[in-house]
Amino acid sequence: MLFKVAMTVRLPHDMPRAQADELKSTERAVAQQLQRDGTWRHLWRVAGRYANVSIFDVADADELHALLTALPLFPYMDIEVEALCRHPSSIHDDDR
Amino acid sequence: MLFKVAMTVRLPHDMPRAQADELKSTERAVAQQLQRDGTWRHLWRVAGRYANVSIFDVADADELHALLTALPLFPYMDIEVEALCRHPSSIHDDDR
Amino acid sequence: MLFKVAMTVRLPHDMPRAQADELKSTERAVAQQLQRDGTWRHLWRVAGRYANVSIFDVADADELHALLTALPLFPYMDIEVEALCRHPSSIHDDDR
Amino acid sequence: MLFKVAMTVRLPHDMPRAQADELKSTERAVAQQLQRDGTWRHLWRVAGRYANVSIFDVADADELHALLTALPLFPYMDIEVEALCRHPSSIHDDDR
Amino acid sequence: MLFKVAMTVRLPHDMPRAQADELKSTERAVAQQLQRDGTWRHLWRVAGRYANVSIFDVADADELHALLTALPLFPYMDIEVEALCRHPSSIHDDDR
Amino acid sequence: MLFKVAMTVRLPHDMPRAQADELKSTERAVAQQLQRDGTWRHLWRVAGRYANVSIFDVADADELHALLTALPLFPYMDIEVEALCRHPSSIHDDDR
Amino acid sequence: MLFKVAMTVRLPHDMPRAQADELKSTERAVAQQLQRDGTWRHLWRVAGRYANVSIFDVADADELHALLTALPLFPYMDIEVEALCRHPSSIHDDDR
Amino acid sequence: MLFKVAMTVRLPHDMPRAQADELKSTERAVAQQLQRDGTWRHLWRVAGRYANVSIFDVADADELHALLTALPLFPYMDIEVEALCRHPSSIHDDDR
Amino acid sequence: MLFKVAMTVRLPHDMPRAQADELKSTERAVAQQLQRDGTWRHLWRVAGRYANVSIFDVADADELHALLTALPLFPYMDIEVEALCRHPSSIHDDDR
Amino acid sequence: MLFKVAMTVRLPHDMPRAQADELKSTERAVAQQLQRDGTWRHLWRVAGRYANVSIFDVADADELHALLTALPLFPYMDIEVEALCRHPSSIHDDDR
Repeated sequence: MLFKVAMTVRLPHDMPRAQADELKSTERAVAQQLQRDGTWRHLWRVAGRYANVSIFDVADADELHALLTALPLFPYMDIEVEALCRHPSSIHDDDR
Repeated sequence: MLFKVAMTVRLPHDMPRAQADELKSTERAVAQQLQRDGTWRHLWRVAGRYANVSIFDVADADELHALLTALPLFPYMDIEVEALCRHPSSIHDDDR
Repeated sequence: MLFKVAMTVRLPHDMPRAQADELKSTERAVAQQLQRDGTWRHLWRVAGRYANVSIFDVADADELHALLTALPLFPYMDIEVEALCRHPSSIHDDDR
Repeated sequence: MLFKVAMTVRLPHDMPRAQADELKSTERAVAQQLQRDGTWRHLWRVAGRYANVSIFDVADADELHALLTALPLFPYMDIEVEALCRHPSSIHDDDR
Repeated sequence: MLFKVAMTVRLPHDMPRAQADELKSTERAVAQQLQRDGTWRHLWRVAGRYANVSIFDVADADELHALLTALPLFPYMDIEVEALCRHPSSIHDDDR
Repeated sequence: MLFKVAMTVRLPHDMPRAQADELKSTERAVAQQLQRDGTWRHLWRVAGRYANVSIFDVADADELHALLTALPLFPYMDIEVEALCRHPSSIHDDDR
Repeated sequence: MLFKVAMTVRLPHDMPRAQADELKSTERAVAQQLQRDGTWRHLWRVAGRYANVSIFDVADADELHALLTALPLFPYMDIEVEALCRHPSSIHDDDR
Repeated sequence: MLFKVAMTVRLPHDMPRAQADELKSTERAVAQQLQRDGTWRHLWRVAGRYANVSIFDVADADELHALLTALPLFPYMDIEVEALCRHPSSIHDDDR
Repeated sequence: MLFKVAMTVRLPHDMPRAQADELKSTERAVAQQLQRDGTWRHLWRVAGRYANVSIFDVADADELHALLTALPLFPYMDIEVEALCRHPSSIHDDDR
Repeated sequence: MLFKVAMTVRLPHDMPRAQADELKSTERAVAQQLQRDGTWRHLWRVAGRYANVSIFDVADADELHALLTALPLFPYMDIEVEALCRHPSSIHDDDR
């Protein structure tokens, strides 16, 4: 099942640089593993903002929630979730 | 260049059924041709709403604008556009 | 899978009474059938507004979308959807 | 009487881990007791967010207020309350 | 039980004058009866707007909903409802 | 002259408990005096939120402003003010 | 007593020109009389919009409401009202 | 040229009292000088809020910006600016 | 003096095609004359929307208002205006 | 390709003056270099606010994102981006 997830990161200005770098580095590793697993199917940067637009492919909302809350940056993100369906005008039976 | 486009359709309640069907049918044909052309790369329905989330792959904003304003349902849609970039944590050089 | 769905109905003021009554009557029949089927698990009226809060129990977002768009009042409703998960503090393994 | 309550938790980023764990643990115990008492009838997690959707079954608004303000996480939550009624299309005389 | 209800009236500009007058006259009669019954305890006009702020004193949300939806102007009103409690700093045991 | 005032309190999470208690205690004393004086005519708690809905009866906006800004919690409150009038459908000549 | 009133006019697109002209002409006459009476103390156009910012000097909210609702364009206006006080840094005892 | 300027002050809760008093005192002196100069033509307090509504009379937007950013409280204010014109229904050739 | 003006056009769906074409054609002629006059300095289309971002160079707000309200599409546009100044980091003494 | 970028700066109140001055000075140098390079084509101050309206001329969204995120003030700015196209009524083939 597909979800569009929009994440905006807001790191506190007083977070020490080393802590921020560590968080980002771990986040990157986790995000890449999830992409390789096929659950984080698309990941785009929104131009001009510390934000992304993503497409997740998971069994259900519980799996999505588990993945998102396990992200190192989760406590610092505003997250919007939209459940997606096959569009009747799509030429793909299974657009992922 | 990639753009995320979110479209919400609001047909007037007093539009004759035949006109609405004609519009939707033409829209579908245009949308499928653009998908086959590779410019409308992804098209998903948002669950529970007459709306979609789409990814367009175009040369620039002028091409995007020309495509969107040529859609038969354009006069009846609220459209939000976000320019996308490659995300530094993406495992794809070119995620489309 | 559970979804919280909030529906607000906005019938055009110039809709003939007979048409409105017919729509509401059919809507009621469909809603009650879906409740008997177990997919529309809860249905509450929001005090003071022509609106409801509902819990749907469906296989996935495609089934939810099919159910909602088949409602007779769908063209006249603003609909908000939120995907739900099991809450870690729930005392029910499967709170429906 | 039923109320839909939507809670979003926003813990300060600089709250010590031990304090946060203590708060969550106590919150969980209180929430589970209220569920066993039958006043907190449903409790669902919103996918992707530190938030829940809940249904409370209380005598009146005073009881609801007393329950909510006694929650350990109350000072850290944005809370929205909607009073619910029996829906005329519900197949349940008393949908809780 | 007390509820604060804020109502804003939006009559269609093309409603015939006679129909509007009839609606307002009936609304006035109903509102005054509810005030005499003690359920519509306070009714104030908001300065400069076709809107009111009201306090209702009802058994529960079902009674409130029945009263509000029976108002002749209900189809033309935006309504916001807030459930009220006794305030701990109130000097009245029962401020109505 | 009547004003509806809606106050939402947002105490900083790091305010020492003693300071908060002192503030609330003084606020309560001031609020009760104003109620006895007849200027703070109604004071209700909004269910589930650290907020109130109030009706003030003052000579003019200057007196209202003086009263509100003298509240101990004023620096920590979001305040919305609406000027009220006699409603033409009120059965009270002077609804306070 | 002073009020800041912001008015935005939204005439229906299908209002006949003659009716609109008549409304505007009467509105102008009323507005100018109120200015001569000293109750509509300031009247400015907001650049680029069919809107104004005004200062009214009236006995109380009832008088303000009576004046505003008697304006010929009242049914077509969005109106925002703010009660004003003497500012402690004003060099005028009575800034009108 | 006239501008309506709405300023809302938000002092940090942890600003030392002496610093706040110094800021306010200097702000007052600057505001009064600008009023005497005729550039800050009107200054009203918004009832119940730490905010004002002001009318500035300046040569152009550059002068307005220079005046506003030189205010001691500028870093702590939310400021909204609207450019004003002569209103065609004003009875004053030059309403200041 | 420079103003940023953002215009969004909302033509009624039931406007006859000929009327819409006539409006757009006249609008285009007026817009091009104002550009040749140097008052409408920049005019860009917003990608995917029937909207533009413009920079006007006028003597003052009165001239801006006169130009905008004379546009044939003015009754059908939402317009936002922001007064602009020279930016201290601009390398142009007079960036138009 | 052109983008309209609106930036609002929000420096923390407790940032040391020297750090703020250093940030602003570096920001200014970077902004001026980008203007000389022709990528930051226009830069205007919004009257009364610590904000700007800018026009960027870049190859694509990736270049825009790289430029913006490299700005020293980027972590302290709210940024809105709109992709621009040639407007059909523009008299310039290439309005930059």
